[in-house]
Amino acid sequence: MRQNEHRVVIVGAGFGGLFAAKALGSAPASVTLINGTTYHLFEPLLYQVATGILSEGEVAPPIREVLRHRDLDVRLGWVTDVDVAGRTVLVRAPDGRERRVAYDSLIVAAGARNSYFGNERFAEHAPSLKDIDDALEVRSRIFHAFEMAELEEDPEARRRLLTFVIIGAGPTGVELAGQIAELAHRSLRGQYRHADLTETRVVLLDAADRVLPAFDRPLSVNARRRLTRMGVEVRLATRVVDVDAGGVELEGGERIEAHTKIWAAGVAATPLAARLADATGAATDRAGRIRVAPDLTIPGHPEIFVVGDMAALDLPGVAQVAMQGGRYAARAIAGRLTGRPVTTPFRYFDKGNMATIGRFSAVANVGKLHFSGLLGWMMWLGVHLFYLIGFKNKVTTLLHWVVSFLGRGRSERIATAQQIEARNALRHRDAA
Amino acid sequence: MRQNEHRVVIVGAGFGGLFAAKALGSAPASVTLINGTTYHLFEPLLYQVATGILSEGEVAPPIREVLRHRDLDVRLGWVTDVDVAGRTVLVRAPDGRERRVAYDSLIVAAGARNSYFGNERFAEHAPSLKDIDDALEVRSRIFHAFEMAELEEDPEARRRLLTFVIIGAGPTGVELAGQIAELAHRSLRGQYRHADLTETRVVLLDAADRVLPAFDRPLSVNARRRLTRMGVEVRLATRVVDVDAGGVELEGGERIEAHTKIWAAGVAATPLAARLADATGAATDRAGRIRVAPDLTIPGHPEIFVVGDMAALDLPGVAQVAMQGGRYAARAIAGRLTGRPVTTPFRYFDKGNMATIGRFSAVANVGKLHFSGLLGWMMWLGVHLFYLIGFKNKVTTLLHWVVSFLGRGRSERIATAQQIEARNALRHRDAA
Repeated sequence: MRQNEHRVVIVGAGFGGLFAAKALGSAPASVTLINGTTYHLFEPLLYQVATGILSEGEVAPPIREVLRHRDLDVRLGWVTDVDVAGRTVLVRAPDGRERRVAYDSLIVAAGARNSYFGNERFAEHAPSLKDIDDALEVRSRIFHAFEMAELEEDPEARRRLLTFVIIGAGPTGVELAGQIAELAHRSLRGQYRHADLTETRVVLLDAADRVLPAFDRPLSVNARRRLTRMGVEVRLATRVVDVDAGGVELEGGERIEAHTKIWAAGVAATPLAARLADATGAATDRAGRIRVAPDLTIPGHPEIFVVGDMAALDLPGVAQVAMQGGRYAARAIAGRLTGRPVTTPFRYFDKGNMATIGRFSAVANVGKLHFSGLLGWMMWLGVHLFYLIGFKNKVTTLLHWVVSFLGRGRSERIATAQQIEARNALRHRDAA
Repeated sequence: MRQNEHRVVIVGAGFGGLFAAKALGSAPASVTLINGTTYHLFEPLLYQVATGILSEGEVAPPIREVLRHRDLDVRLGWVTDVDVAGRTVLVRAPDGRERRVAYDSLIVAAGARNSYFGNERFAEHAPSLKDIDDALEVRSRIFHAFEMAELEEDPEARRRLLTFVIIGAGPTGVELAGQIAELAHRSLRGQYRHADLTETRVVLLDAADRVLPAFDRPLSVNARRRLTRMGVEVRLATRVVDVDAGGVELEGGERIEAHTKIWAAGVAATPLAARLADATGAATDRAGRIRVAPDLTIPGHPEIFVVGDMAALDLPGVAQVAMQGGRYAARAIAGRLTGRPVTTPFRYFDKGNMATIGRFSAVANVGKLHFSGLLGWMMWLGVHLFYLIGFKNKVTTLLHWVVSFLGRGRSERIATAQQIEARNALRHRDAA
């Protein structure tokens, strides 16, 4: 670090933090990017890791590699607190040691985590899909369930093994349900002798009255029809009141026996949001996100920007919002340093919203325009290839897509022994 | 299964079992392949998973997918015992349930596992490299060590984090040492600000007096010189007497402080070999492998074949031996069933032996011919691409090689939170 240079600290290397770091490239500042993992996570494709299409490396490129041409400091650690008066953040390294890092400007982009709405005990039976560990765990559960169904002789137990319940019908839930249906009815077809994969049930549940509530209603209707056609049972206005090892219980008493349950039902801000709100006196919304000023700073703290899923902006929790927010915050800081302050508030430019249903099938909402089916899917393909970070990722990802969508292959189907043992230990604990 | 058909059970889906299953394709028999994991493991490339070049899916294709065009039964489970009189094997499923599977002919190809020569307590500090879990654990340790070195301010602790000790200088040890040296001095160069990667030490230890003892001596000398040039410290005739969290202790009292230790020093037969020897009265060698007749059957048990690393054949423990053995056993069984018995004993056709040192550098021993450097590496490339299972694997693997060898990228660098937490728990236990 050069002496006396303005110190910018960015918390989080998701879309918000990464785009802020890139946009700060040429600013006369010393930039430190702090993240709890060594990789940037391309979250919109996490469901493809969970369903065996992509490898974890393809959706999680190392931050150092993505930013290798930038002059900045990448530090591994979780930011657990902010000292607003002293202008430092407290960073906890993976080995438990804590260090303080000083800032002059701070961009907080620590994202969101999954919320079980107070039912945290659901988590061990119904993992969510927010990080690489989750995706590998879900992948292991899905593929292992088919394998165990092949061995199971009791018809009832086999049906339970072949039943997959996804709770939450936002993009992640819809994409997971579509992919599991494709696995059972297409990719894995003919690979089992004893289990009849046509018995597979994929149940997509949501308390809302439609799938993809962030999309225009006709697209929700379209997506639901497509899911149903693929063999997904879509059950709306349905609340889950309990999740256990053997299944889920619905409001009204109905029970669905299911070995594999996946939670895709909602997000909350990370604990850092509450710490930051405490420290700055900022207000938060119901999900714990911080209410920011129109320029994305915390009221009374022009040196602290909050971008992406941590900010309460009345915008969807999508990558574009975080990217644009990160870039805006970086430009605002660079502008102050170069004497050309940014005077316009942050304005989100909505490039549209899309979700895949299955191969060659997606819905996309661009302004007032609706696209679905193959056309929607081509748009999804183009956009995701465009935004995938790094040349190599694009090429191998494209190749894996060719294999999975044109062919039937799922190349990443590993369940590690560690994962299987951990689940066996859990089952034995429950049985005791 | 058709009634009264001859039942062939194959234990293990490594190179021996897989090639036996393929060669049995058209025989008038009902074939069951039993394996403890759902995937075939392309073991010679496991070191590339451990060093971030390939994804786990690329070296571990699902057995069902590899054999999808064959008419056979693939069952998940570990064979724990053989009832020779009753002609059944006992299979333990991942959920702990045990089932018996009957055979008329049995091909046992359960391979080998790593041996710590009675020092099993070394295992938690120095993982070996025999399966996917191992490779992911080693990968996590290697990349995490660089990351922790970047955070470490104490020079001594940083040197320990940047020291990698590999115990065992056979092909796996040599390949690992070469790849870690390339990581430090080439692939990761310039990606760290605080840690000086030129401080990295890669130490390759062996009790023997040369590297690659299965190769002709001039190639061992050549390989050693190439390793040294790449920055690997090769220490021969050196015995490790202790391994702990902070380093290794050598015979004579010298200690090497090293955060990352990897065990590549020797194999032993799996416990099934001892059970099978007990049940049949077969003799075993010092490594626990079964002494078979010239036709690979157990003396007195013409219905039981033992192939690959489980058989004591005075042949190297390489894929070719297992492949040819598996194919031979399959043909012998098919010959009996069709009235054209195979009368010649098993003869290994040695296609040669090769090991990579680094990019564009390998040694190969083909008959009396020696190849090294780029020429050796081209041969290695061709042979490994040829034997890689499945079209898609070949293409993505080739692409990853282009990226890693022509470029500098390592696309698979993930350490999961589960792995990091498990190691932290271990450290806290040791500190308590």
